[in-house]
Amino acid sequence: MPRPGPQDLPKGFTFAAASCGLKKSALDLGAIVSETPSAAAAMFTKNLVQAAPVVLSKDHLRRSRTRMRAIVVNSGNANCATGPSGYAASKQTARETAQQLGCSPDQVLVCSTGVIGVPLKVGKILGALPALLRVRQATAPAFAKVTRAIMTTDTRPKWAAEHFRIGGKSVRILGCTKGAGMIQPNMATMLAFIVTDAAITPKLLASALRDAVDGTFNAITVDGDTSTNDTVAILANGASKARAIRGTATDYASFAEALAEVCRRLALAIVADGEGATRVIEIEVRGAKTERDAKTIARTIANSPLVKTALAGGDPNWGRILAAAGRAGVQFEPSRVGIDLAGARVCRNGLEVSFNERKLHRRMLSKYVPIRMDLRSGRATARIWTCDFTGDYIRINASYRT
Amino acid sequence: MPRPGPQDLPKGFTFAAASCGLKKSALDLGAIVSETPSAAAAMFTKNLVQAAPVVLSKDHLRRSRTRMRAIVVNSGNANCATGPSGYAASKQTARETAQQLGCSPDQVLVCSTGVIGVPLKVGKILGALPALLRVRQATAPAFAKVTRAIMTTDTRPKWAAEHFRIGGKSVRILGCTKGAGMIQPNMATMLAFIVTDAAITPKLLASALRDAVDGTFNAITVDGDTSTNDTVAILANGASKARAIRGTATDYASFAEALAEVCRRLALAIVADGEGATRVIEIEVRGAKTERDAKTIARTIANSPLVKTALAGGDPNWGRILAAAGRAGVQFEPSRVGIDLAGARVCRNGLEVSFNERKLHRRMLSKYVPIRMDLRSGRATARIWTCDFTGDYIRINASYRT
Repeated sequence: MPRPGPQDLPKGFTFAAASCGLKKSALDLGAIVSETPSAAAAMFTKNLVQAAPVVLSKDHLRRSRTRMRAIVVNSGNANCATGPSGYAASKQTARETAQQLGCSPDQVLVCSTGVIGVPLKVGKILGALPALLRVRQATAPAFAKVTRAIMTTDTRPKWAAEHFRIGGKSVRILGCTKGAGMIQPNMATMLAFIVTDAAITPKLLASALRDAVDGTFNAITVDGDTSTNDTVAILANGASKARAIRGTATDYASFAEALAEVCRRLALAIVADGEGATRVIEIEVRGAKTERDAKTIARTIANSPLVKTALAGGDPNWGRILAAAGRAGVQFEPSRVGIDLAGARVCRNGLEVSFNERKLHRRMLSKYVPIRMDLRSGRATARIWTCDFTGDYIRINASYRT
Repeated sequence: MPRPGPQDLPKGFTFAAASCGLKKSALDLGAIVSETPSAAAAMFTKNLVQAAPVVLSKDHLRRSRTRMRAIVVNSGNANCATGPSGYAASKQTARETAQQLGCSPDQVLVCSTGVIGVPLKVGKILGALPALLRVRQATAPAFAKVTRAIMTTDTRPKWAAEHFRIGGKSVRILGCTKGAGMIQPNMATMLAFIVTDAAITPKLLASALRDAVDGTFNAITVDGDTSTNDTVAILANGASKARAIRGTATDYASFAEALAEVCRRLALAIVADGEGATRVIEIEVRGAKTERDAKTIARTIANSPLVKTALAGGDPNWGRILAAAGRAGVQFEPSRVGIDLAGARVCRNGLEVSFNERKLHRRMLSKYVPIRMDLRSGRATARIWTCDFTGDYIRINASYRT
């Protein structure tokens, strides 16, 4: 992934990151600031267990969706299952940020990621915030530092930018994300932050975000484990001076398309960096009776350890794919099913088609392996992206806490 | 596991196993024969995709539940997704067996386990059957050979025996099973065969089997993948000459209890031999509103790759257990939850309790690790058994087919 450049930056946003001591000698605190009040939209985890910053940020979003100023995020601790003192820690973080920016605490979104159930040493964050916010800059290197400060088991920073024009004015969208494990976003992903200098109402912003997230962040899975801290947030400050986007105009379509593209690239970057992953798997189920059926089957295949380990070895074991579909709880006729693996037809009418096993094995070792299953019982389609399952996933997760 | 002895054998059954060439130089064909017509009951996979022998055996069970004679089983090929020729292969297997035993083909149950979607070379089975059935014996070594002939990725044979008395007569129950991966039985397990010399009607036999399976085979999971070939079958031939078991008598309770104990030991043997597993995990969820809620949460925890990898490393990462419960789709109050890990309280009211992390880590490295979660919102309880998730699971499954 190339580094971000000045051409990627929406106007009116500043960025800063620091190492406050939650992680040993690594960036672990980041701030994204809109220099003027900004429209905001966000989606949060549907896990019943929700981290303190999620609970606080939901409340702040409700109060300040027309005038948000900042997102403050720490890695190294999820501040989840930490009780009233965890909630107080998130509140103090918002209050200190607001004091530095000269705004109200509810104009700040707070996010955390890392280990669950360990008290957050908020003193380290509070101590670092004043200097952090003083050195914030509207530069690509400052943004690049934020993309690193939010990493946990990620092996690389993940960002994406798009731009388009409204009435001769350039409008930019820039996003970053983190996530490698505990990834089966449900209405949001681990953490994703997007800023744009478009002028748009919070209502339209929320609708564009919902549409974009549905086929991107909500269509990926690394391990089927939905996080307690999933948050995707977008700030739109209008600093491009382009005319305001309205629901019916083509401007909205341009914006929604660019936003979806940013979300798609961020979501695929998460899967490609999935813990221990060596390749991205695209699972498309077509010919289903309903989209829900197609998605359920695609997700069951995507989360099957037997399918994912076969994909790690480049093993064309299509029987496991069919078996996973069969246990998804969706009615279909196995004897009509067709399966393509890495572009080769391996199963027709539920039966094996003769194929060159060695050649297909080699093709399945590439970075991007598509799987297509056609149920031939309807017209609905769904796509899910996942990664393979390797010994490194185990190594990374066998001693995360200790 | 000790070897079976003559005292474990129910009367009137014979056993034989051979290497017919489906696997390279290993036992891959077994037969269990009741020398007289036998009551039979069986449960089969609920996977929508069902192997040919499952379809055939269901039909044979319907026709011959009062007079079953034999179970013939091969490993090395699941005969699933093999179309009409796969079904014909199972039929030929039943026909050849019947001819050798002098009975009707529908008095034979046929089972297969192994790779899915590859045509079964039934000629090898048909060629081996006459000699196999000729050498069948009512001996423990012959039974022990059957327990080996049904293995695929299993590292060891699995069997269990119980006996009890009815009116002074000894009644025996003997079972064997196979399974290590693609294990989340739904109404049955991979393959389990149980024989008893009790005298009992097929109806009572089916009811005792259903009850026994529910809390045993249907309460284990290795990887969440329900197989296409799951079958548990029991034959009861009455050869003990003990009086017939009736529904209301205490005889039935003795029989049901002994049968459940055999099933429990077979099911736990599967989990202990789970692909790559180093320990058995017992997950008990109590204080739920309904048993269904408790089971859903227990199963979600048991299938979480993040929980299972932490258990491989002996990492007391209780936050992952709470997060998995939170995504199970069941309503509960996170701030009431208590969690015990390997006998130590680690979480109370949703918050961490201080514990000795090194000491607990050592305890979590033992062969049997219990996890207890108390939701404190009701009186229902459920237990699920699973195993940890190690790099060996990946190695075993990355190239199963190729």
